[in-house]
Amino acid sequence: MSAQPMPELHGDFEAWTRERLARVERALGDWISTAAPAGSRHGAPAALVSAMRYAVLDGGKRLRPLLVLASHEAAARLGQACEVAALRAACSVELIHAYSLVHDDMPCMDNDVLRRGKPTVHVQFGEASALLAGDALQALAFEFLTPAAGSAVEPESIPDSVQACLCGILARAAGSAGMAGGQAIDLASVGQPLSEAQLREMHQLKTGALLQASVVMGAHCAQAPARVLAALKDYGAAIGLAFQVVDDILDVTADSATLGKTAGKDADNEKPTYVSLMGLQASRDYAHNLHAQALQALDASGLPDTATLRALAGMVVHRAH
Amino acid sequence: MSAQPMPELHGDFEAWTRERLARVERALGDWISTAAPAGSRHGAPAALVSAMRYAVLDGGKRLRPLLVLASHEAAARLGQACEVAALRAACSVELIHAYSLVHDDMPCMDNDVLRRGKPTVHVQFGEASALLAGDALQALAFEFLTPAAGSAVEPESIPDSVQACLCGILARAAGSAGMAGGQAIDLASVGQPLSEAQLREMHQLKTGALLQASVVMGAHCAQAPARVLAALKDYGAAIGLAFQVVDDILDVTADSATLGKTAGKDADNEKPTYVSLMGLQASRDYAHNLHAQALQALDASGLPDTATLRALAGMVVHRAH
Repeated sequence: MSAQPMPELHGDFEAWTRERLARVERALGDWISTAAPAGSRHGAPAALVSAMRYAVLDGGKRLRPLLVLASHEAAARLGQACEVAALRAACSVELIHAYSLVHDDMPCMDNDVLRRGKPTVHVQFGEASALLAGDALQALAFEFLTPAAGSAVEPESIPDSVQACLCGILARAAGSAGMAGGQAIDLASVGQPLSEAQLREMHQLKTGALLQASVVMGAHCAQAPARVLAALKDYGAAIGLAFQVVDDILDVTADSATLGKTAGKDADNEKPTYVSLMGLQASRDYAHNLHAQALQALDASGLPDTATLRALAGMVVHRAH
Repeated sequence: MSAQPMPELHGDFEAWTRERLARVERALGDWISTAAPAGSRHGAPAALVSAMRYAVLDGGKRLRPLLVLASHEAAARLGQACEVAALRAACSVELIHAYSLVHDDMPCMDNDVLRRGKPTVHVQFGEASALLAGDALQALAFEFLTPAAGSAVEPESIPDSVQACLCGILARAAGSAGMAGGQAIDLASVGQPLSEAQLREMHQLKTGALLQASVVMGAHCAQAPARVLAALKDYGAAIGLAFQVVDDILDVTADSATLGKTAGKDADNEKPTYVSLMGLQASRDYAHNLHAQALQALDASGLPDTATLRALAGMVVHRAH
C-alpha cells in the first residue's frame, strides 16, 4: 500500500483538532495552578509556578496530547472509554515534552534563546529557575496521572491498573532508555559520523519514544485489547520516526520564522541528520514510506474508525511538503 | 513525654541497618543497569548510565530507604507485608534524592565541586550529562515503582493500587509543592530575612516532603490502616523538620571532613538557617522537641513494634550532639 493523499475528512479533522486543543489548553491552565496553588500553605512557590506555566502554556502544536486523545477515542470503540484518564494522560505527555525543551534550551545543552517565538525559560527566569521548573514539570506529569484524594478528579475515576500502567509507560518513555537516553546520544554525537541505524536509534529514543508512548497511553486509557495495542504501538513507532525525518528536512528547507526556532541549526552544529546522511530526496521518500507504514498499522488494528489517527499521521508528514 | 535516651536495642539496630543497607545497595546496583541495559537495542546509552550510577552508588547514608523499610516492617504488623514493593519504594526515594543532589550541585545552583568526598557529577561528566543524568534518575524512580512485564519483578507482585499510590505520593513529594518547590524558595531566599514560619515552610518542602514521603510510602506498601498512616505521617513530618534543624546546627559546629561537604557554606552564602534565626542553643532545644514529637506519634500509632523507627529518629537527631 502506498502513502495516502491527505484525508478527505479535512473539515471534520479541523473541528476535532480545534475542540481537543481547547480542552487540553484549558486543562493545562487549570491544573498547573490547581496542582500547585501559589501562596497556599505547603503549596508551590508562585515564582516556580510562573516559570512552569510559561514553559507549558500558550505555545506548541500539542501533537502529543492530540495523539493520546485520538488513540483513546479510536481504541474506545473496542475497549472502554475513560475521558478523564485520556485528558490527564494527554496533559502529562505534554508536561514531559515541555520540561525536555526547557532543559534542552539551557546554556549547557543547546543554548537556545528563542522557543516558539518567545525568550526561552532560562532567559526569562534565570538558569536555576529553568532547571527547577523542568524538574517540577517532570514530577507534575506523574501527579497528573495519579489524582489525589480531594483533587478535582477523584482517584477512583481512573482504575488503579490504568494509573499504574500509564505511570510505567511514561517513565520509560521519558527516562534513560527513552527521551533522556536519546538526548545523551545526541549530545555525544555532535561532530561524529553516525550510521543510519545509529541515527534511527537516537531518534527512536529522543523523540520517538514519547510520541509512541502518547499513542500507547491513549489506548491503555481505553483498556484496549492486546491486538489493538500492538497495532497502535507500530503506528506510534512509524510516526515517531517520520516526525524526526521531517524535522531534519524542515531544518534545511524552512526559514526560522516558519519554524519558530533557529533554522539550519543542526547543520551548523554538525549534528548528524537524515538529510546529511541520505540527502534531501531520499529523506522525503523515507518519510513517505514511514507514513505508509503508519497507515498499514492502523489497517491491521481492526479498529472500526481510525480517521483521526490517519489525519494526524498526515499532519506529521505533510508539514514538510 | 520528653525526648528519649538513645534506644537500648543498639546492637539490634546496627545489625538491622547493616543488613537493610546491603539489600538497598545491591538492588540499586542491579536495577540501575537492569532497567537501562547499556548497549542493548533501544537501551540506555552507556555514558548516561555511568553518570547515573556514579550519582547513586557508593555513597550516602541511605536514610530515606531505611525509613521506607522500617516503616513498612512496622506497619506490616497491622497490615500486609509486601517486601518487593518496599524495596522498590526504598530505592525510588533514593533516586529522587540523588537526582536532586546532582542538579543542586550544578554551577547554576549551588556550584559545588565535592559531594561525599568525590567530584560532583557535573565536574566528573560535564554539565550537560549531569543535567540529563538527573532527569533520567527522576524518571527511573517511577520506573522502579511500576515494574514492567518481563522485568525481574513481575508487575503482578505489587498490587496496582499500591503502585498508583506510591507514584502519586512520590511525585507530590518531589514536585513543585514538595522538594522542587522548596529548592525554589531556597533559591529566592539567599540574603533575604525569613521568619521562622517561612523557614519551616521552606524546609518542609525542600527536605521534609521526601523524608515524610519515605515513611508514608513504606506504610502504604504494607497497606496500613488509616490510623497507622496518619500517625506515621506525623512521625515523618517531625523527623523531616528535625533533620534540617540538625543540618543547620552541623553547618556551624562540624568541620568539612566530618560533613563530607563544605562546612559553613550556608552562613557564607547568607542563607537563612535555624541557627542564624534562633541561635545555637534554641536550635538544639527545637531538635530535641521535634524528636519527642516523633516518638509521641509512634506511641499514637498503635503499632506493636516501633523500635527501629524510634532508633532512626534518634539517628537523625543525635548526629548533632
